Amino acid sequence: MPQATAVNTVWVVLTAALVLFMEGGFSLLEAGLVRTKNAVNVTMKIFVDLTFGALAFYLLGVHLAFGRDLLRLIGIGPVLAPTDLPTAAFVLFELGFAIAAASIISGAVAERMRFSAYIVTVILTCGLIYPISAHWVWGGGWLARLGMKDFAGSAAIHALGGAMALALAYLLGPRRNRFNDDGSVNVFAPSNIPLASAGAFILWFGWFGFNAGSTLNASSAALAPIALNTFIAAAAGGMAAILVTMAKFKVADPSMAINGSLAGLVAITAGCAWVHTWAALLIGLVAGMLVVWGTGWVDRLQVDDPVGAVAVHGMGGVWGTLAVGLLDAQEGLLTTGHIHLLMVQALGVCALVAWGLGTTAAMGLGLRRVLGLRVSDEEEEDGLDIALHGIPAYNELERFGDGRQALFAPPEREQPVAMVWLSGDQSPSSRP
Amino acid sequence: MPQATAVNTVWVVLTAALVLFMEGGFSLLEAGLVRTKNAVNVTMKIFVDLTFGALAFYLLGVHLAFGRDLLRLIGIGPVLAPTDLPTAAFVLFELGFAIAAASIISGAVAERMRFSAYIVTVILTCGLIYPISAHWVWGGGWLARLGMKDFAGSAAIHALGGAMALALAYLLGPRRNRFNDDGSVNVFAPSNIPLASAGAFILWFGWFGFNAGSTLNASSAALAPIALNTFIAAAAGGMAAILVTMAKFKVADPSMAINGSLAGLVAITAGCAWVHTWAALLIGLVAGMLVVWGTGWVDRLQVDDPVGAVAVHGMGGVWGTLAVGLLDAQEGLLTTGHIHLLMVQALGVCALVAWGLGTTAAMGLGLRRVLGLRVSDEEEEDGLDIALHGIPAYNELERFGDGRQALFAPPEREQPVAMVWLSGDQSPSSRP
Amino acid sequence: MPQATAVNTVWVVLTAALVLFMEGGFSLLEAGLVRTKNAVNVTMKIFVDLTFGALAFYLLGVHLAFGRDLLRLIGIGPVLAPTDLPTAAFVLFELGFAIAAASIISGAVAERMRFSAYIVTVILTCGLIYPISAHWVWGGGWLARLGMKDFAGSAAIHALGGAMALALAYLLGPRRNRFNDDGSVNVFAPSNIPLASAGAFILWFGWFGFNAGSTLNASSAALAPIALNTFIAAAAGGMAAILVTMAKFKVADPSMAINGSLAGLVAITAGCAWVHTWAALLIGLVAGMLVVWGTGWVDRLQVDDPVGAVAVHGMGGVWGTLAVGLLDAQEGLLTTGHIHLLMVQALGVCALVAWGLGTTAAMGLGLRRVLGLRVSDEEEEDGLDIALHGIPAYNELERFGDGRQALFAPPEREQPVAMVWLSGDQSPSSRP
Repeated sequence: MPQATAVNTVWVVLTAALVLFMEGGFSLLEAGLVRTKNAVNVTMKIFVDLTFGALAFYLLGVHLAFGRDLLRLIGIGPVLAPTDLPTAAFVLFELGFAIAAASIISGAVAERMRFSAYIVTVILTCGLIYPISAHWVWGGGWLARLGMKDFAGSAAIHALGGAMALALAYLLGPRRNRFNDDGSVNVFAPSNIPLASAGAFILWFGWFGFNAGSTLNASSAALAPIALNTFIAAAAGGMAAILVTMAKFKVADPSMAINGSLAGLVAITAGCAWVHTWAALLIGLVAGMLVVWGTGWVDRLQVDDPVGAVAVHGMGGVWGTLAVGLLDAQEGLLTTGHIHLLMVQALGVCALVAWGLGTTAAMGLGLRRVLGLRVSDEEEEDGLDIALHGIPAYNELERFGDGRQALFAPPEREQPVAMVWLSGDQSPSSRP
Repeated sequence: MPQATAVNTVWVVLTAALVLFMEGGFSLLEAGLVRTKNAVNVTMKIFVDLTFGALAFYLLGVHLAFGRDLLRLIGIGPVLAPTDLPTAAFVLFELGFAIAAASIISGAVAERMRFSAYIVTVILTCGLIYPISAHWVWGGGWLARLGMKDFAGSAAIHALGGAMALALAYLLGPRRNRFNDDGSVNVFAPSNIPLASAGAFILWFGWFGFNAGSTLNASSAALAPIALNTFIAAAAGGMAAILVTMAKFKVADPSMAINGSLAGLVAITAGCAWVHTWAALLIGLVAGMLVVWGTGWVDRLQVDDPVGAVAVHGMGGVWGTLAVGLLDAQEGLLTTGHIHLLMVQALGVCALVAWGLGTTAAMGLGLRRVLGLRVSDEEEEDGLDIALHGIPAYNELERFGDGRQALFAPPEREQPVAMVWLSGDQSPSSRP
Repeated sequence: MPQATAVNTVWVVLTAALVLFMEGGFSLLEAGLVRTKNAVNVTMKIFVDLTFGALAFYLLGVHLAFGRDLLRLIGIGPVLAPTDLPTAAFVLFELGFAIAAASIISGAVAERMRFSAYIVTVILTCGLIYPISAHWVWGGGWLARLGMKDFAGSAAIHALGGAMALALAYLLGPRRNRFNDDGSVNVFAPSNIPLASAGAFILWFGWFGFNAGSTLNASSAALAPIALNTFIAAAAGGMAAILVTMAKFKVADPSMAINGSLAGLVAITAGCAWVHTWAALLIGLVAGMLVVWGTGWVDRLQVDDPVGAVAVHGMGGVWGTLAVGLLDAQEGLLTTGHIHLLMVQALGVCALVAWGLGTTAAMGLGLRRVLGLRVSDEEEEDGLDIALHGIPAYNELERFGDGRQALFAPPEREQPVAMVWLSGDQSPSSRP
């Protein structure tokens, strides 16, 4: 193997591993942001992405995305990998992207969707819907031909995923008691902030793979600037969100710090290879402000998005795609005075959002008829963890044999509660 | 340094870091799967692996494994690293493997083993028992000479570790109240599913290093296919386990989703470099089904394996080793009609399992006599965290000065409980 | 791009990602070691490091550190990156170091510092104080000219950060009720040991990037030995701390196992490229013992350092810097009999500690006057999470509509508590 190919392979395999590790980030982020009673369920949905979704993309989607172009609409046949890169490395890297698109949706539909309907959604997303958008942008499809610039997928993954998340969250309806009759919002506090933050740090880490890995080539002069731009945009997004919440709510809000950083990452994903670092900083700043505003906007639509996926990925993705039209070093409106690229970017992101909304509406309505989209009210109240997976997320307080919780230890009990619960193995529930 | 050596060094050092990071995965996986009262203890055991185990392998084991071959049984003297790779990089990479072997055992003996006995077990495992098996398979030993194919250690690490785990869990006996007199099993619910899942995602991430890094050579044409096969087998294993539990228990079980993915990873470890991707998918599917069956089988043996290490690593490892004999692209029985390799694989994995069972039985019986293997009933009831480490894993509910827990605040107390516990610093316990 | 530059870029970008991921480690470590009521706040401080700190270093600090040397004191103008490495990759890598310096401080001031004062501290640390120390040691400043050897920053980052942590923790004063009138210490138990350990494992993982990445050159013959030395020192540090606590307290203490490993990492950071592996083992062993003793020493000073940052980073850093003078393979006192290097190392580390103490004292006193350093007693009692961020870290027990906690469900309630809390969405608090 020529040395250059070897280095490309090392680069792409390691960045693919980073991208796939982002699923761990999604899992912790979502488990931390939803209510305790649904933390197992969101985790299991990430497992669905990594298993059903990955296999759907591997068996079908990757060919639709990166096969030989047909009519500038879809790909067919064997995967066409870049030269100087083994096909297996390319496929592995692209797998991570497909799964990420599904994971964006998973957060928005949290706490109320049927598990079987989610599995089908993931299979269709990774096997069909996302691959076609990827083909349009990166596989030689019509948006590529128009000259749309979406380096690592602000549009093709994040805006698409955000649009799909919006459509499916709308079809599902809000969680019980989320909105009051007067349209006001009931806050469901995130269950575990340190865990959600850990998820955000893993996502941030993985994003180096997501963006810089998208060079697919270790000799690309853009590689290092991409990585720096990625980091700076995230820092700016997080800073903006912290400052906005300090100004607006008088407290530095952790969910917004998390989502501001992520929005910065989403927004720089399109332009990371083509903008100066000062522009990356600006893109991140705007994304961090947008996410606070966007979260409120989704609430005002009375759409319930438990983790803010629409604001982070949808709005961040749209903004990032347009920002290339504004700030691209070669063709940006603000940097060079040319408006052509901006028009193409706007057309492209509109097309992808429309594709996401339309396909998801069709899929969601079909699923509602065939399988049912939503769990029963009782399952929702009990929590999906118990209802769908038979186990709560946290079993720190163990049960007595007679079904009472340690907390319900009768007052005459002499032992201090810590001891009671620490010796919970005395009489666990039994299975035959 | 020639450029090729530089690239190999970068590759092996980074993949070694991934392999060593898997210890964080083991730690979270086990802390999440055991009961709360033993979560500190399993974490500390991973620290033992990373410290005592690493030094035992560095000072002794690596020479036994990779020194000059003596009688095809053990190595002696200076480590023989591959050409084009600095010895330090090779040693670091192999360190991660030795520690992983110890960590497999740690899960199976959780919640009841004496800490000092565990330290000795780790020293012997990393310094002696695993290195000899590594020598047989990779260091020029008799199994290597017979032509056994175990690319990254389904047999030499996972089947061995699983066998050692089985033997030691048997010698230790089950946790109190684990089995009823009629042989039925009492379920001890995992204490923290999101944490256990995070551990699984870290392990999955690190496995790219484990398998692809085992090329020890960045120019290997197998590198990218290995990485893809590794991922596909994990996806298939997780999918199989989810589907089986949905069919069998009517719920998608999170522990099985975790262990199914891990079993897929274990099983593909032997053949990742030599099978087609469709075969990797098949190997993963079978591993994911096996793990559900295997967990029940271990229960029926009345052996108590709190995290499923025997089913994941032991059975997954045996299956993966045999699967090379069946599906190897060059010599597999099903792919080419030749049975020779399958026989060698079967012999090899039997030898390694026997080696694991035998040495562990000797070690365990010796330790039982000299140090004692098992904590006292009282320590087990209190939990090993308090008994052996003086601290519970989670101190979310703080104490009052008089030793009562916040939860035991008398009802006449006006303050809401959240405030009580959030101001727990008023009167903490004091040390002189 | 020449192939060597491409490989260097890949190496430095990936190791920079590892270093930046260490922030996730700091976050989990600190969230796990502080009390529950301040876990959000420490997490938010890491976000401040990653956002405000990163931008301060990018916009100002990197020029002071790595611009053209002026009077051997500070740098000015464009960043001078090593040849064969893109400037963007170099800047990204150095960013991770600046943020790490700030994160060291964050732990020592946990649970009582005003958020705005912390933001200013981070901006000054990353924009000014650390960059100047970096210039002295690595940017052509006076310590570099004297021949000081501090490969990846035991002195320039860790001893400096530890000194700054000490000064600021002293100025802030101890947490309420931390010390009794007789000088005895009240133990505030870590809130979440598995999380803190996960943080330690991430830090350990990231340290491969920190130390080996500091070659900034993939062809460096030192690269692999650095990585191995780093690991061995951490293992030795952790082992020493476990053994010392077993001997001293009769229990293997998890905080000390964590901090002993980290101290080993800190201590080998200066010498990793220049000492033999046996010396790395020795350096780690001493660091692991020092950290136990140092934690007590800080207590005896009546300085309150909630996570042990002074003992780990301060003492580990000083020891590691001096250890190069003792054990350097070319110029160490014990290895070669020459005392010159040891004198330079001692001078250098004293200068850096003095710089850290002095600038922090000035900054702290200024901040105390202008913004106030410390939260109110009431905020401290309530916890900074509620007071400064409006949300507790863990919301596992949800509220009823009337503000009572699930735990306070009146006894006449029939539903078991688990169900009560799992259906907490019935009547959440509402926002208008």
